[in-house]
Amino acid sequence: MVDVTERVSEFVRASGIQKGLAVIYVPHTTAGITINENADPSVVHDILLTLNQLVPPDQPGYRHNEGNSDAHVKAGLIGCSVTVIIENGDLHLGNWQGIYFCEFDGPRNRKLWVRFSPDVLP
Amino acid sequence: MVDVTERVSEFVRASGIQKGLAVIYVPHTTAGITINENADPSVVHDILLTLNQLVPPDQPGYRHNEGNSDAHVKAGLIGCSVTVIIENGDLHLGNWQGIYFCEFDGPRNRKLWVRFSPDVLP
Amino acid sequence: MVDVTERVSEFVRASGIQKGLAVIYVPHTTAGITINENADPSVVHDILLTLNQLVPPDQPGYRHNEGNSDAHVKAGLIGCSVTVIIENGDLHLGNWQGIYFCEFDGPRNRKLWVRFSPDVLP
Repeated sequence: MVDVTERVSEFVRASGIQKGLAVIYVPHTTAGITINENADPSVVHDILLTLNQLVPPDQPGYRHNEGNSDAHVKAGLIGCSVTVIIENGDLHLGNWQGIYFCEFDGPRNRKLWVRFSPDVLP
Repeated sequence: MVDVTERVSEFVRASGIQKGLAVIYVPHTTAGITINENADPSVVHDILLTLNQLVPPDQPGYRHNEGNSDAHVKAGLIGCSVTVIIENGDLHLGNWQGIYFCEFDGPRNRKLWVRFSPDVLP
Repeated sequence: MVDVTERVSEFVRASGIQKGLAVIYVPHTTAGITINENADPSVVHDILLTLNQLVPPDQPGYRHNEGNSDAHVKAGLIGCSVTVIIENGDLHLGNWQGIYFCEFDGPRNRKLWVRFSPDVLP
């Protein structure tokens, strides 16, 4: 899990958008994106520990022959996009929130796509 | 899991928005938000029962020393926002759908942030 | 899990929207929607295998008396909407991504609701 908050924030600031919504989208099927605690890295450890227990890399019955079935399942559980709020030209997150790209089958080169939609209230 | 459908609906109606999308966002890292059955409260019971079995409060290997690792993991599995449709000035949900704030580490004072984005079709 | 990518794509193309975001919303509480690998059907098999192991149909303690508690829990884990990007008048997905409607309590007649929101950048 890679903290991408600062990278996304830079992108938002560079866009000039003052207010609205941002969708941060992962165009991959063995990776995900999620929002969680940004302060104590042990939280990330505990999330990955639990995901690995719930979705073991080797499980009798897996049919996908690339050996990364667990990564696809984890991607499904975590999801491939988050929607966040933009205020005052930057990400508007909760105090303890950071945005994490979740690599479940790496290392690989990955991309994040970001799109903005306007806020309907002034 | 607290049914917040009526509170969100009041907020939508008060906004005057007739049509569009609403993002309901939880700015916390040990809580989530989800949409599920609004009629039989036993569904909520069964969701929490299963989440507690999948993500036990005490698990060997947890490193986060605040004792709420499970709450962070559950928040990651459930997610911290939902996007819903607005039609005719109110929430447009399925017949059996309600919106549930999921407190995984309470009781605490919590907030929900709601933002609206326009529908591109007339 | 039913691949609905082509059906959603047709809907997007018919709408005339060139650029923006699409929210694809499931108005049911025992079904979900997710994005995952579109090439090898064994991935879908492995996702369902794992979900069935994590959330068994019969589990001591379930209270919901319709016998489909597992379907409600799975819907909560997978989620009832996805947000995708529209570019050049069509879905803009990753190379290996397809959109899957997830029926957890079927067969039933189901609906998908699709709404569009504009992109704030030109």
